Amino acid sequence: MSILIKNGHVIYGATLEVIKADVYIENNEISKVGKNLNIGADCVIDAKGKVVSPGFINSHTHSPMALLRGLADDLPLMEWLQKYVWPMERKLKPNHIYWGALLGALEMVKSGTTTFVDMYFHMKEVAKAVEKAGIRAYLSYGMVDLGDEEKRNAEIRETLKLLKFIENLDSPRIEFLFGPHAPYTCSPELLGWVREKADESGKRITIHISETRDEVKQIKEKYGKTPVEFLDEIGFLKGDVIAAHGVWLTDKEVKILAERGATIVHNPGSNMKLASGVMPLKKLLNAGINVTLGTDGVASNNNLDMVEEMKLAALLHKIHNLDPTVADARTIFKMATQNGAKALGLNAGVIKEGALADVVIFDFNTPHLRPIVNVISHIVYSANGNDVEATIVNGKIVMLDREVLAIEEEKVLDKVQKIVDELR
Amino acid sequence: MSILIKNGHVIYGATLEVIKADVYIENNEISKVGKNLNIGADCVIDAKGKVVSPGFINSHTHSPMALLRGLADDLPLMEWLQKYVWPMERKLKPNHIYWGALLGALEMVKSGTTTFVDMYFHMKEVAKAVEKAGIRAYLSYGMVDLGDEEKRNAEIRETLKLLKFIENLDSPRIEFLFGPHAPYTCSPELLGWVREKADESGKRITIHISETRDEVKQIKEKYGKTPVEFLDEIGFLKGDVIAAHGVWLTDKEVKILAERGATIVHNPGSNMKLASGVMPLKKLLNAGINVTLGTDGVASNNNLDMVEEMKLAALLHKIHNLDPTVADARTIFKMATQNGAKALGLNAGVIKEGALADVVIFDFNTPHLRPIVNVISHIVYSANGNDVEATIVNGKIVMLDREVLAIEEEKVLDKVQKIVDELR
Repeated sequence: MSILIKNGHVIYGATLEVIKADVYIENNEISKVGKNLNIGADCVIDAKGKVVSPGFINSHTHSPMALLRGLADDLPLMEWLQKYVWPMERKLKPNHIYWGALLGALEMVKSGTTTFVDMYFHMKEVAKAVEKAGIRAYLSYGMVDLGDEEKRNAEIRETLKLLKFIENLDSPRIEFLFGPHAPYTCSPELLGWVREKADESGKRITIHISETRDEVKQIKEKYGKTPVEFLDEIGFLKGDVIAAHGVWLTDKEVKILAERGATIVHNPGSNMKLASGVMPLKKLLNAGINVTLGTDGVASNNNLDMVEEMKLAALLHKIHNLDPTVADARTIFKMATQNGAKALGLNAGVIKEGALADVVIFDFNTPHLRPIVNVISHIVYSANGNDVEATIVNGKIVMLDREVLAIEEEKVLDKVQKIVDELR
Repeated sequence: MSILIKNGHVIYGATLEVIKADVYIENNEISKVGKNLNIGADCVIDAKGKVVSPGFINSHTHSPMALLRGLADDLPLMEWLQKYVWPMERKLKPNHIYWGALLGALEMVKSGTTTFVDMYFHMKEVAKAVEKAGIRAYLSYGMVDLGDEEKRNAEIRETLKLLKFIENLDSPRIEFLFGPHAPYTCSPELLGWVREKADESGKRITIHISETRDEVKQIKEKYGKTPVEFLDEIGFLKGDVIAAHGVWLTDKEVKILAERGATIVHNPGSNMKLASGVMPLKKLLNAGINVTLGTDGVASNNNLDMVEEMKLAALLHKIHNLDPTVADARTIFKMATQNGAKALGLNAGVIKEGALADVVIFDFNTPHLRPIVNVISHIVYSANGNDVEATIVNGKIVMLDREVLAIEEEKVLDKVQKIVDELR
């Protein structure tokens, strides 16, 4: 399979230089980028007036929660969780998870996300949905033991089952990672087991850290130290850790994270909507930490649109610092693409010869993206996910002219509507 | 002309009740809302799986600034203005303004805005663009005298010319309003003239108030009081004043504004991007002030998408107050619709028998708006402007299936590209 994308504005390389060029994709790789490429291809896409961009990497979400969209909003955190989110989640059967994840995958493909990092339960079903949708994903089972040994062993079994399932799938687009939920929901024993198994297997870890003030307080009361200090003391923090949120990090914690090479996933939409707090982006970037971007789950966002998420990130930190120079468009764009790839050890996130062909095309032939003056600015500040016209993952066209090829979209929409109407 | 919109989820009345119903539009009014309306109509629109919403009212923008999209971002305010915005604006001729306003109008129609309040220069050209695009607008010439009498007289002449031009146009969709730029750029004499003429003519006034800390400081140094205190002392503030921003209002100023019945336009996108500050939304609402929503100009947003703006408003105030219950979806939706209509004395902003037919249809047959659970939540938190499929203004279909009927879109996009390529 080969694809030739002609005449686009191409966001080229890690420096995000915008050049008018053609992009030639062969098998699962970007093979050539240059002017007037005259190469025969199985599929030729005319990208005149359009922008060829690396696909977005959603570094933190819970894809099946697409089912919970609009379930409840504007409530205090505990009321929202206890009265709405948790009761609904308790009703979710494997079959529901499959359709929820398919809805999430569909939404991500349609808004230009080519890779996502997921944490939830019934994750085999998510893997099946990812396989079907044609997107790339790193999947973790969210482990919670609350210090209970029996529960811990069950969580470990579930995790190992998922690991085996994904290995057997042998998909070039699906990877396993460990998903201990958070320091306040996982015992030191469980976290220690994860660290050991991650070292052994070379698989990565994703975890929530310091999303709310309450959980930080809990950890301090329990261990007499902050969450990152605690995790570091038990040897948990290394370069393979992808930690979501990091809202309430202290300067000392930032220093530790930088030294260990861990990644922090910023989730501005969710942090704002739940009023969790503002993560210290400027400090993290100044410390040289790899910061990526995520949407978190739909229940707290309420969408999976990484293009929108970039604008939220940029605006949040400008207003929070009362400084318009903070969180400039290029920094934010990198967070949503190449930084995500770096966190995953994935050869993607850039348009460059030899990189994986995870590529999206924005249609700039629309009033809100004209005049074309600064492509990165337009994507971060003016565009939204619906402006993505084509999505290519691992060298395969997953969406063209906004039509997702492998999925009957209407069927998915009908199905999730039925599921939710029944469950509510 | 009559239009029958069948089978939609209709956001009905000022209470935003969502009902499954048909909407019948006759001439420029919503004539009937009800189940299974069997009425012959010139045009029948099937809205199955779609949402029929009042059109959005962008209460503060500078539409021709669509030409300046992406010109410069992420800079300190004065550098951005002095090095980029002002030099570009000095080059703008009437013909440029026409095309810039047409681009802005096109963008607004395509993202569900049916009415906007504008302030700029060469406003006759904006009126022509509005007339062409089919949108509804309240247009003001931005007056600045900086205390200079000669300049003041010139500004007054320009304003009166626009008033006359709009009266002669005699368009049902175009209204004049006075546009003294701000207390720090307009002399008390000029503001006094505006107040007098507004009383005489019954036309409304729009003005910028307390957008930045610097301008508040200037006013305090000059007059020994805050901007609202100053304006109130000269008798400027009444119920016909639509004041943009109101970021740095004191409690005393909030009280005065409430007593005078003035409207404050919130512009979260621009305030965040320029790092101007966070307006005290909660205080304003608690004081009973009519708060509306605006995008401000494209140069500081960088789009005119009121659907996106609603999400920005909701998220900004939740995070700023560290309280997820602040700025709930329904409050924000009202700011973007019926509060805007109230500020303008316009019989619109709601779907109701007898209201002006300014109506938009959202296509909810898309992954990020499913399952349909809470329509208002989905519009505020999950949707974006591209989800608007049809726009009806004053009973006329302006956009259908995302195609704007009265304008050759491609021609406008090409033209603005040429203009900006030449000017830069």
